[in-house]
Amino acid sequence: MNERSECAGALMPVSPMARALELAMEGARAGEVPVGAVVVSAGGEIVAGACNRVERDRDPSAHAEIIALREAGRLAGSPRLVGHDLYVTLEPCPMCAHAIALARIRRLYYGAEDEKGGGVDNGARIFSLTSCHHRPEVYGGIGAAAAAGLLRQFFRERR
Amino acid sequence: MNERSECAGALMPVSPMARALELAMEGARAGEVPVGAVVVSAGGEIVAGACNRVERDRDPSAHAEIIALREAGRLAGSPRLVGHDLYVTLEPCPMCAHAIALARIRRLYYGAEDEKGGGVDNGARIFSLTSCHHRPEVYGGIGAAAAAGLLRQFFRERR
Repeated sequence: MNERSECAGALMPVSPMARALELAMEGARAGEVPVGAVVVSAGGEIVAGACNRVERDRDPSAHAEIIALREAGRLAGSPRLVGHDLYVTLEPCPMCAHAIALARIRRLYYGAEDEKGGGVDNGARIFSLTSCHHRPEVYGGIGAAAAAGLLRQFFRERR
Repeated sequence: MNERSECAGALMPVSPMARALELAMEGARAGEVPVGAVVVSAGGEIVAGACNRVERDRDPSAHAEIIALREAGRLAGSPRLVGHDLYVTLEPCPMCAHAIALARIRRLYYGAEDEKGGGVDNGARIFSLTSCHHRPEVYGGIGAAAAAGLLRQFFRERR
């Protein structure tokens, strides 16, 4: 067995989302809303990954996606991550969705849908706006059950 | 003469926007799209300010507003900047508008309207979404001519 699931094919490698889920769990242990994200280079390598750091960094913008994009830009030497893909355990909010467009991410894979807070297939639908200059290919529902379960558990324990 | 314009009144202090414009000019000199932002505390003090750093930091998320919010959160010791206001020379994009909502900014003052890229009074209209949990008061057009002139000059010189 290699790291890719046999049925998913090349468009849905398992390991980046598994890594994003690990990062989400790390976030939960640190008291952050459990969302994890990784950026994968055009060559298929995971080049950056993060979980939310909003509370720890006292940074309202410190969602997993923003931190992973920033790190990937630094490593790529450009804010335009042409050919890069982003994997995140939860549908990005409008802030992160627009950052993904600004970064020229090629493909966005997300886990659980976020009917209340999402900005890709819900709410602002950032990539559908005529003012959106770059639209990644979007694949939702990748590893959704695990990602949603983690979030449910996190909020149940804090109620 | 004190620092407030006589006709503008208490809701529209001149100096934070003047400082934001200065920061925008600093950005232009460094080759960044000239947008500047400052955060003002509940007590009326400028606590953070930034211009775009997208190219210098190779960071797709490094808009002036995001950097100023991050710095203000760090200084306030919380990602929730209750009672704080944000001044920015250009209508925020959807990324920054949603970050402003996440940060619970009380009042947003912006300079030039951005019909193509804006996400407050144009495009995504982030604060009008039913999914938006926090809506700042919004005052547009503050120092708009100077801010728009700076942007026009910047893009004319680069054509």
